[in-house]
Amino acid sequence: MTPLTPISVADDDLALLTDLYELTMLQAYWHQGMRERSVFSLYFRHLPPNRRFMLACGQQYAAELATRLHFSDSAIERLADTGLFRDGFLQWLSHYRFRGDIWTLPEGTPVFPNEPLMEVEAPVAEAQLLESLIMNQVQLETVLASKAVRLVMAAEGRPVVDFGMRRMHGVDAAVRGVRAYRTAGIAGTSNVLGGLRYDLPLRGTMAHSYVLAHDDEREAFQRFAELYPGTTLLVDTHDTLDGVRKVIALKDAHPDLEIGAIRLDSGDLGDLARRSRQLLDDAGYQQIRIVASSGLDEYQIQTLVRQGAPIDIFGVGTEMGASTDAPVLDLSYKLVEYAGKPRVKHSPGKVNLAGRKQVYRQCDANGEFTGDVIARREEYIKEGTPLLAHTIVNGEVDSAHIATLDQARDQACRSISLLPATMRELTSEDDGRSSDDYPVTLSQALQQLQQDECA
Amino acid sequence: MTPLTPISVADDDLALLTDLYELTMLQAYWHQGMRERSVFSLYFRHLPPNRRFMLACGQQYAAELATRLHFSDSAIERLADTGLFRDGFLQWLSHYRFRGDIWTLPEGTPVFPNEPLMEVEAPVAEAQLLESLIMNQVQLETVLASKAVRLVMAAEGRPVVDFGMRRMHGVDAAVRGVRAYRTAGIAGTSNVLGGLRYDLPLRGTMAHSYVLAHDDEREAFQRFAELYPGTTLLVDTHDTLDGVRKVIALKDAHPDLEIGAIRLDSGDLGDLARRSRQLLDDAGYQQIRIVASSGLDEYQIQTLVRQGAPIDIFGVGTEMGASTDAPVLDLSYKLVEYAGKPRVKHSPGKVNLAGRKQVYRQCDANGEFTGDVIARREEYIKEGTPLLAHTIVNGEVDSAHIATLDQARDQACRSISLLPATMRELTSEDDGRSSDDYPVTLSQALQQLQQDECA
Repeated sequence: MTPLTPISVADDDLALLTDLYELTMLQAYWHQGMRERSVFSLYFRHLPPNRRFMLACGQQYAAELATRLHFSDSAIERLADTGLFRDGFLQWLSHYRFRGDIWTLPEGTPVFPNEPLMEVEAPVAEAQLLESLIMNQVQLETVLASKAVRLVMAAEGRPVVDFGMRRMHGVDAAVRGVRAYRTAGIAGTSNVLGGLRYDLPLRGTMAHSYVLAHDDEREAFQRFAELYPGTTLLVDTHDTLDGVRKVIALKDAHPDLEIGAIRLDSGDLGDLARRSRQLLDDAGYQQIRIVASSGLDEYQIQTLVRQGAPIDIFGVGTEMGASTDAPVLDLSYKLVEYAGKPRVKHSPGKVNLAGRKQVYRQCDANGEFTGDVIARREEYIKEGTPLLAHTIVNGEVDSAHIATLDQARDQACRSISLLPATMRELTSEDDGRSSDDYPVTLSQALQQLQQDECA
Repeated sequence: MTPLTPISVADDDLALLTDLYELTMLQAYWHQGMRERSVFSLYFRHLPPNRRFMLACGQQYAAELATRLHFSDSAIERLADTGLFRDGFLQWLSHYRFRGDIWTLPEGTPVFPNEPLMEVEAPVAEAQLLESLIMNQVQLETVLASKAVRLVMAAEGRPVVDFGMRRMHGVDAAVRGVRAYRTAGIAGTSNVLGGLRYDLPLRGTMAHSYVLAHDDEREAFQRFAELYPGTTLLVDTHDTLDGVRKVIALKDAHPDLEIGAIRLDSGDLGDLARRSRQLLDDAGYQQIRIVASSGLDEYQIQTLVRQGAPIDIFGVGTEMGASTDAPVLDLSYKLVEYAGKPRVKHSPGKVNLAGRKQVYRQCDANGEFTGDVIARREEYIKEGTPLLAHTIVNGEVDSAHIATLDQARDQACRSISLLPATMRELTSEDDGRSSDDYPVTLSQALQQLQQDECA
């Protein structure tokens, strides 16, 4: 029998969570004495389907993670066992610590194709090693936050709550997804550990199983509401409107019983919400709110909101939990400078922008964003705000440049509100890839460099 | 500044990785003295797009996990801080251990809608608590394995290697994905920790950055091949065929240098593979193999294979890493029996099958599977093999019923080969949902029970 492996990755194992070629390349750099300072840029080439921007998340977390990365004795032993690595290299690896510099976008920044979310500067091996882990971590949060923010926009101010833990890809996704959701403006989560860890209010109702474990639905409602004043009762186990009537009868019989809301979880949510609202209002229970869930995505929420469905809170699981319409982002982590010289890869369709960069976000007289300029890091651009901050300096975290969770949420909320209105529209794949409404251009100096390098 | 939170979930925190309502329902059961034995069934109602079957994975791992679940002192303290729970309940929770029974499908079993992957029998609170974690874990592996097996089938015997770590949703998905991929027949992985943990061969080539860090591509090839005899060289950094010519020139100049393969990572892979093969063969290097990668999915692999493209190994990342066309499975964990009485939820479109069940897989005289019968657990079905095994008995793992990694892989390979040929075809969404080719029926006794319960 295979012993049960742990569910998580201990800090001591984290450096092994990498692609093999990172380690073989590292040994090659070590073997060849290649220690020149390099710059790697993390960016994506194309927006995924249905996205007009991505909400950059996780890059500051990943930068901090980089400073903690180390090879424990047990990690070194396991690498030795592979037979691929020499003793001298493993000794070098056992002393590995990231001592370089990292520039990052603040968490919660809307970001567009070819803009660096992160630039890493260090001797080539130090910077190369980070590739796989950084990509895994930044993709996770950026993909989930970029989906969540669409649900938040669709709800037009009504709270959206995360019910997605069971549909997320494993425990790390479930927990750190809550961090991404919080940045995106999600109002609460059913995920206990995620909510406690990232200070997002815990929310929960009841499951159908609780109702089914009772012989009588009304008894289930009464017992639960007695124990949890102000709770939400799930009314659709047998028949939704019949369930609502039972709530009303219960409240009529026990006026002191506090019932905060009912939850609809199947059927035509708009119609059921209207009819439930009517029943509750007619009975004088205007204060009982309506929570709706059941495979909701941003389009359904937008339709419900615009049709005026009397739904107060949306619970979202599946669609947000894995960002089902766009579960991946084609992040690249590319060498753009080595030993002071810009580097460009020429593979068809995969050319990168050479050299160290900065992104300037420009705005009009009202403060609304009008477009971005990607420039060389060294050049002076008069207009616009530089976005990339010097987060890690010589391997040390500069706390002044790490956003708190609240700052990240505020950054996201404010930035999105300053984008052109068309960028906030929910688009389908066919028309979502146009960036005409938000020009991202290259500075003249960067264009010149690119021409020189591609010549 | 927010302190940096850990990347993973320690064993002591695992019980908190649950939806809040599980804990509030548990307290209600405790408060009401509801301790009756219950049966929960884990199943899905519909196949995701493009899937003709799912490959059940992770359910035995999840069953073992269930027996380890406990609330540490620190977990209890954090729950106390929420103000939602009473001291007596928290004390009960601090002694929580799963002492019930779990029946599971063997890992690597093809599974169809409404068939239980797992049935959990225990006092209601014990069984209820497992819901969120089990669903999260079983979905992760089942979704990834079900995607991976499609790539394996498309490759028709050529090895498929996992390069997906960077596109997977966080560290748990990346590591345990390797477990699922192994079951599905993936031949190797670039993921060091995943490969070491689950004993799947480590595979890796080089990145474009390594080539770019050298002023001369041929020098990069030579240095890498000297250090790693038999390695794979990435030839498309500047111009693919030019890269192949450099490999040939290098080999001509250093006949002793062992070069195992070249890797194509952009452009028209079929055309480039043919032209590269021709160049290599003309130079007398028939033994140098060709690895292809670059956003490959099962349809592209099938096309390449059927066109006879001389590709020896496929590397797959993005499409497999998040199962992009079907990243979620609508798993349900439903109460089907309480206190000896079958239970059914009547919500529209969400009716469950009542009672404890068993699945019988039937076959013809050649041993090929002809269909499944879902039956009551207690009834005797003459034809077919019962699939659900009694994995956890009174909270103890029965090792005889836990598949090893090799057994799971063999189970998957053998079972899939015994399905009707049409079930192994790659289908698109439009025609993939028909199950006419593989009937799954209910036994008469189960039909009768269902009629009685829904009446």
